[in-house]
Order: sequence, then C-alpha cells, then structure tokens
Amino acid sequence: MRFSSETSSDGVREQLFTLGEIPGVLWTPAGAAGTRPLILMGHGGGRHKKDPGILARARRFVAECGFAVTAVDVPGHGDRPMDEEFNRIATENQARVAAGEELAPLIAGFQALVARRTVPEWRTVLDAVQELDHVGAGPVGYWGVSLGCGLGVPFVADEPRVRAAVLGLGGALASAEAAARITVPVEFLVQWDDERVPRADGLALFDALASAEKTLHANPGKHGEIPGFELDSTLRFFTRHLG
Amino acid sequence: MRFSSETSSDGVREQLFTLGEIPGVLWTPAGAAGTRPLILMGHGGGRHKKDPGILARARRFVAECGFAVTAVDVPGHGDRPMDEEFNRIATENQARVAAGEELAPLIAGFQALVARRTVPEWRTVLDAVQELDHVGAGPVGYWGVSLGCGLGVPFVADEPRVRAAVLGLGGALASAEAAARITVPVEFLVQWDDERVPRADGLALFDALASAEKTLHANPGKHGEIPGFELDSTLRFFTRHLG
Repeated sequence: MRFSSETSSDGVREQLFTLGEIPGVLWTPAGAAGTRPLILMGHGGGRHKKDPGILARARRFVAECGFAVTAVDVPGHGDRPMDEEFNRIATENQARVAAGEELAPLIAGFQALVARRTVPEWRTVLDAVQELDHVGAGPVGYWGVSLGCGLGVPFVADEPRVRAAVLGLGGALASAEAAARITVPVEFLVQWDDERVPRADGLALFDALASAEKTLHANPGKHGEIPGFELDSTLRFFTRHLG
Repeated sequence: MRFSSETSSDGVREQLFTLGEIPGVLWTPAGAAGTRPLILMGHGGGRHKKDPGILARARRFVAECGFAVTAVDVPGHGDRPMDEEFNRIATENQARVAAGEELAPLIAGFQALVARRTVPEWRTVLDAVQELDHVGAGPVGYWGVSLGCGLGVPFVADEPRVRAAVLGLGGALASAEAAARITVPVEFLVQWDDERVPRADGLALFDALASAEKTLHANPGKHGEIPGFELDSTLRFFTRHLG
C-alpha cells in the first residue's frame, strides 16, 4: 500500500493510495488515532472513487460519526486504464439496446462479470486499510448503489467482516442468488420511477435478502434522484449497527 | 368540549375530554402555553384512543418534540357504545371470510364506510383542540396505520390543515381515490409479510399518493410488527415538516 498524497479540510483527512494496481482513497477524522468503524463505498457506473456523491457521503460519515471511509476505482473507471474486455462488452451492450434489447438484463450480466474482479480486490483493500493504526480492525460497513449495489451484493454476501450495508438502485436479475446469502442488516434504497431498474426488479432484490433486519426506503424520482434526507437516515443506520 | 380528568407524568400532561358524543384525549407538554404543532392520531381496528401503541408514540411526540397530540375513539371502539350498523357488518364480514371470501376487500369496504363518519368528526376535534391556549392553530400532522390509515387517507385528503402524515398497513382497495388527492409529505409504512394487507395492495396505495415527497419504509414482519426504529424515523419526519 503506497500513499501518494494527503490533504486535510474541515476535520477530514484524505489520503490517496495505490494497492497493487488499485487506486484508492481513505478518509479519516483529522488527527485521529486508534481503531474505528470502516465503511467501504462502491461508486456508480462511469463514476469513480471521488465522485461528488461518494465524497459528500464519506465526509459526513467521517465528520459526524468518526468513521474511516475508503473507496477504490472499479476496473475501467477513474484512474484505472480502460479494460479491454469490459469496454468491448459495454460497446456490444449499447448496440444491443439500440437494436431493441432490454437494458436491465444486460446491466445485470455486466455487473456480475465485474463483481468477479472487484470482490477479491475489495477484500485486499479491507486487509490493507485495517492494518493502519488510525483505522484498525473495527466493524465494517458497506455503502453502494447502482453499480455499487451490483458489485456490493456479492461482496457483502462473501465478506464476513461486513456487519451492515446500505444498498439500492439495483435489481434481482444480477444479484438474487448472492442476496439470499446476506444476513446482516441492510437499508435498501429504491427510486420509485427508476428508468434503469424496473420497480419490480428492485423490490425483488430487497425481497431476496436473507437479513432478519432489512428496511426498504422508496422515494419518487429517477435513478439519480435519491432525496437528501436519505443520507441522514444512512448515517443513523450505520451508527446503530457499527457505532 | 368538556374535560373530565387531567393527569401529568414525566413532563406529559394528559387530559381526557368529550366533544359531543366523541371521547378523546389530549397530550401536551406539562406547563406549556402557546401555539404548537398538533398531531391527530387514528387508532387501529378493535383498539382505542389510549392503546399502548398510540400512547407510546404520543408521549414521545410531546416529550421530545414539544407537540400536542390528540386521539379519539372511532365509532364502536373504546368508550363509545357499540354501533349497531358497524357491528352487523363486522359480523357479516366474519361469516363471509369463514365462507372463503377474501379479507382485504371486506376490510376496505368497511373502512370506507366508517370514514364517512370519522372525517367530519375529526374535523370538529381539530376545531375544538386548536381553540385551546396550550395548542393553538399551529401546523397539523396525522399519524395512523391499519384502520388508522383507512380512515386517515380520506381525512388527510379532505383536511387542508394537515401538512404531513405518517400512514401505512393499508391498501389501495379502500383508499386509492382519496390517496390521489393527497399532496402533503407522507411517510408510508409497509410490513413486508403483512398477513392482512396484500403486499401489492400496500405498494399500490403508496403509488397512488399524489405527494411530491413521499417515502415508503418497508420492513420484514407481520401486520403488527413495525420495528421500533421506525418511531425514531417518524419523530424526525414530523419534526422536519411541522417543527
């Protein structure tokens, strides 16, 4: 794990790192030492580890809860080189949608493919980040919607360190089998007028989760229009389960 | 409006009253004077104005938010005389369910009938309670699930003083038409394994609400098993919209 830069503002320390070929970022409370809860965040499709939606949430997790937060670029995203295989499939999928195929199953297949790479990558990120003195081996949470849900469901299912997860904007097509192995508390976000994930498919993914405590929050609006008050809820959810 | 008793405990003043033939209860912060938000609560079927589920929520609305809260007995419930017509219909419905008819449409029809009585009753309760010096004409909220949703949807639709409502455990069969006239913010509770309200019918009622801000919270469990953390969310919801 190699740190390449460090900045600090408004009480939040930000460290950029690379772990092997994976570029990542770690946010912690400025000046903090000792073990604390850690949240791994998965970004959306076409986005990256410092996407505004990731950054805004990460800063609040750190500043208001004292958590550590880490995010890394998914293959083919952010500071990572274009991935030949993923790129070819994305191009093919665009052509198939243009030819009239349904979007949701194509997204689902693509996310399942990418997850085979990201699940082991994210594990090594957890291993490395939890070695740091200012993070330590505390309870782990996962936050990810859209692509971050498609990749997050198999990760949360397979990673016993994760004790609570916020997921959403994803459907059962890609993830129902892995969802049925998730037993930790989940807060699950659905956009009622999602133009990318059919409503029934989102509800079916919530339904597939084996968690005894799972809570579905659905709000009007399109895929990208999660209302601001849901972040308040997310903070309380993680505080309840990791704090 | 005639007050028959007054007690006070843990900072919450409780006044029992009758308004015409309607027995009611009013909770306010002990020693409080002046205008404050008012929440009208509708109890469940077979329950009453001081049902434990009503009482626990009302005390928190008063103690933590400084609100006034009022609840009255629905006709045929609590301290009100048995209602011949409602009693006859309830008995008939039991027989029809025993003979194999679906429960949900029968509940829906019954609630629509009762609502024709409770909507005007609840209006007069608001009128009277808002005349009191320690309540005043502040913003009004409505809370009601199950029967309290079936009766609450037409009330919220028709009563312009209501600025925000928590509803749930109800279905579209009874209330879709009235729901389409509701435009205030709604937090809507669904129990994912509700044995009385079919899941699709509950989701359809949420869908029917015309509110620009509406948020669906669904949790595993049966009709009566709303998890405790939803009350925390309800407090924040009312604080956001009435506070």
